[in-house]
Amino acid sequence: MKSTILKPLCLSLAMVSSSAVLAVDSEPTAPRNVILIVGDGMDDHQITIARNYLAGSRGKINLDEMALRSSVQVLTVDDKDPSRPLYVADSANSATSMATGEITSRGRIGTSAKYDQDLVSIVDLAKQAGLKAGIVTTANITDATPSSFVAKISQRECENPEMMVDALIYKRKPVDCSQDVKAKGGPGSISEQLAASNVDVLLGGGMQHFSKQAEGSSKTVLEQAKESGFYIADNASDMKSAPADKKLLGLFAEGNLPERMAYEGEREAEQPDPSMLNYLHKYLGSVEMPDTVKCESNAAFGDTPELREMTSVALNRLSEKNDKGFFLMVESASIDKASHQRRACGQIGELQQLTEALDVALEFAEKHENTLVLVTADHGQAAQLMPDTSLFKAFDLPAYSPGYVARVETPEGVIMAVNYATNGLFAEEHTGVNVPLFANKEGVGKVPTMLTQPEIFNVMVSYLNLK
Amino acid sequence: MKSTILKPLCLSLAMVSSSAVLAVDSEPTAPRNVILIVGDGMDDHQITIARNYLAGSRGKINLDEMALRSSVQVLTVDDKDPSRPLYVADSANSATSMATGEITSRGRIGTSAKYDQDLVSIVDLAKQAGLKAGIVTTANITDATPSSFVAKISQRECENPEMMVDALIYKRKPVDCSQDVKAKGGPGSISEQLAASNVDVLLGGGMQHFSKQAEGSSKTVLEQAKESGFYIADNASDMKSAPADKKLLGLFAEGNLPERMAYEGEREAEQPDPSMLNYLHKYLGSVEMPDTVKCESNAAFGDTPELREMTSVALNRLSEKNDKGFFLMVESASIDKASHQRRACGQIGELQQLTEALDVALEFAEKHENTLVLVTADHGQAAQLMPDTSLFKAFDLPAYSPGYVARVETPEGVIMAVNYATNGLFAEEHTGVNVPLFANKEGVGKVPTMLTQPEIFNVMVSYLNLK
Repeated sequence: MKSTILKPLCLSLAMVSSSAVLAVDSEPTAPRNVILIVGDGMDDHQITIARNYLAGSRGKINLDEMALRSSVQVLTVDDKDPSRPLYVADSANSATSMATGEITSRGRIGTSAKYDQDLVSIVDLAKQAGLKAGIVTTANITDATPSSFVAKISQRECENPEMMVDALIYKRKPVDCSQDVKAKGGPGSISEQLAASNVDVLLGGGMQHFSKQAEGSSKTVLEQAKESGFYIADNASDMKSAPADKKLLGLFAEGNLPERMAYEGEREAEQPDPSMLNYLHKYLGSVEMPDTVKCESNAAFGDTPELREMTSVALNRLSEKNDKGFFLMVESASIDKASHQRRACGQIGELQQLTEALDVALEFAEKHENTLVLVTADHGQAAQLMPDTSLFKAFDLPAYSPGYVARVETPEGVIMAVNYATNGLFAEEHTGVNVPLFANKEGVGKVPTMLTQPEIFNVMVSYLNLK
Repeated sequence: MKSTILKPLCLSLAMVSSSAVLAVDSEPTAPRNVILIVGDGMDDHQITIARNYLAGSRGKINLDEMALRSSVQVLTVDDKDPSRPLYVADSANSATSMATGEITSRGRIGTSAKYDQDLVSIVDLAKQAGLKAGIVTTANITDATPSSFVAKISQRECENPEMMVDALIYKRKPVDCSQDVKAKGGPGSISEQLAASNVDVLLGGGMQHFSKQAEGSSKTVLEQAKESGFYIADNASDMKSAPADKKLLGLFAEGNLPERMAYEGEREAEQPDPSMLNYLHKYLGSVEMPDTVKCESNAAFGDTPELREMTSVALNRLSEKNDKGFFLMVESASIDKASHQRRACGQIGELQQLTEALDVALEFAEKHENTLVLVTADHGQAAQLMPDTSLFKAFDLPAYSPGYVARVETPEGVIMAVNYATNGLFAEEHTGVNVPLFANKEGVGKVPTMLTQPEIFNVMVSYLNLK
């Protein structure tokens, strides 16, 4: 009994660790690679919502079968006083934590809170050490998460040369990156920084940020990217046939890539509709709940490259003729964007895209030893899985969310109520909940059961021997 | 390098497993014990909220340092059609899952959905096999979570003989357990079932349910408990000095035990107060947020036994002169009750009580090999950790939760906003999110990275060799 229990455990650990040990002991072995998959806003509510739809309440998705599960403390500080913590992050500061190992303030891309110092990212370290590096996202490639791994700028909104000085977002939110303009010796806007970068693969959306005229130049940012050695692809076919000796910049939409799934019939999450009497007192009257919704394929998705296709292309390019290893960040961005805008079906479809990209990554890791696959989220999101039938139904009172509700019909024939109730504006808030982290078996023994978000950087650079 | 990496891992696994192996190979070894600690409603939001307050945003609580972290799929079915899943549980069906390994419907205590069959619990199995068993809670001992481990009844509200037939909760919710009355050969109400049980230790609140006259008897339920061999304690001193040769029933309040912490000055979570103009359009006008609140000791707590004290007494009694082992369930119940009623400070204090009980359990496990300590939640809760300063502040629009908000001043000098926005009634809803599960090192290799809630029962009975 003793041997049958103990041997397999030790053997499987030995199998996990042996290649790591060999890499130190003797050259040559397979190079070390890290694939970091980020589900933007993908906390446990979003995972449960997606699982219920995609696999059923008793089903499993591939995240559930990962060898290791951990939890991540998301850390944010106040920009005016970096000694003061804030309890809820945005994607800029949380991606910067993962990319650089530092804690910073909301809105910052690869720069320190208050002092605006440039921070060294894992992509910087990887390229310096001769490794390859790639960034894949379903958002604008200049968006907060992808850009934090490459760019250094004080505000996430400075995505192109026209957004650097005296700019306004939606005619309301002022943006100022004037200290970062090239005329003052700065690195320029995010798209300009990406165009000038030595990142081997950049795939996502955001053509709009590259078609602008570059600062101090008659050329567009896209033309500058070509001059710096990028092959430009704007469709899946071009992406796949891009010449191997060039860097690859794939831009497959003007802005964010469309979401795969949508509510049928252009529906939205809606507010429950209480009767007049209910306005007099919350225990009076009745309430009409929104009609249920079905999810369907989003027609606008069309021939947009799927996240798994982009991931596959990136892995092929990064691993080919490469004896030094690579770092790849893959983001399913619109789990967050759909949740902000109360699109439960959008969230589910984009989480599905993440699981497909994870399948590609795990298959790669099976064939290429020394590949650490990590999956995590940058921060929590507002969407909550709520009872469709109130726990208090038997009291016969009008029980309803004060926010927006999507009552989604799931394939297993049940109504799943998703609650959005953090504010009534154009977008819901993030939340400050700890987020999950998963690893393939290569992560076992290297990732504790809980870590801070900047410590993800430490795990990755340590694995790649970059420090 | 190889040996230094591999040896400690194999050694530590060997240390974990060796006693298990010996228990099979050769007698006598230390008996096997399971301590299951349940944080009612304790999902990752509640843990993060409590950690931020108790240890700071960068701090750790003992849950974070556990050897194993897993996640639990909470499963619920419709009572009329048990083939139909529901996505959100209550404490009755989720505790029944952990106690019996079966999936049931909301409100049921140890009985099957639709068919009302009695289900065999881990306490039943433990007692049959000669092990000891104990239940500790901060709720009424007749409440859903504790009673699911012992009692079998169709509705959780049937806590005492007067609640069995034609009863009403809050004069609105009808209750009917008429098929379970003793006159019809049933087991009687929950308090009567507990009074007649052979559970060695029962500690919590709920004297109100034992002071009622027992069905078909001139005696109270409490008198019946005495006759069945229970020593009755109603204060900490009595609890600690109870004779060792008796079963122990400790009832330290009429109802639920008071919560340790409360808002200072009898404050409540409040609704943001928008200006008149904001009623015309959500982008107009302004909003006044509720004042911040401080947490303080709850004066009503008085000399109520703390959860750690009850846990310690239970562990002493269950382990003394016991060569067969035991099962102990410890519940911090009012993480849920406080969250239902929007008492962020109450939630935090009761989660702190859970961590203290966990310290007691871990200390016991250090001294008593073969003790598996599991910590989990039964379901998610409404409370969300939200930004106190909206992500959209720079747009200068009135951003505010449509629900209730507690803006808690934390010891590290920051305002933590807790959002309650699932309904406007007297109590918030549960949520359907997966909940965390933690284990001490005894659980490593025995608990997968994800499991269903009924599988927790399987892990425990397998560990105790009860099946």
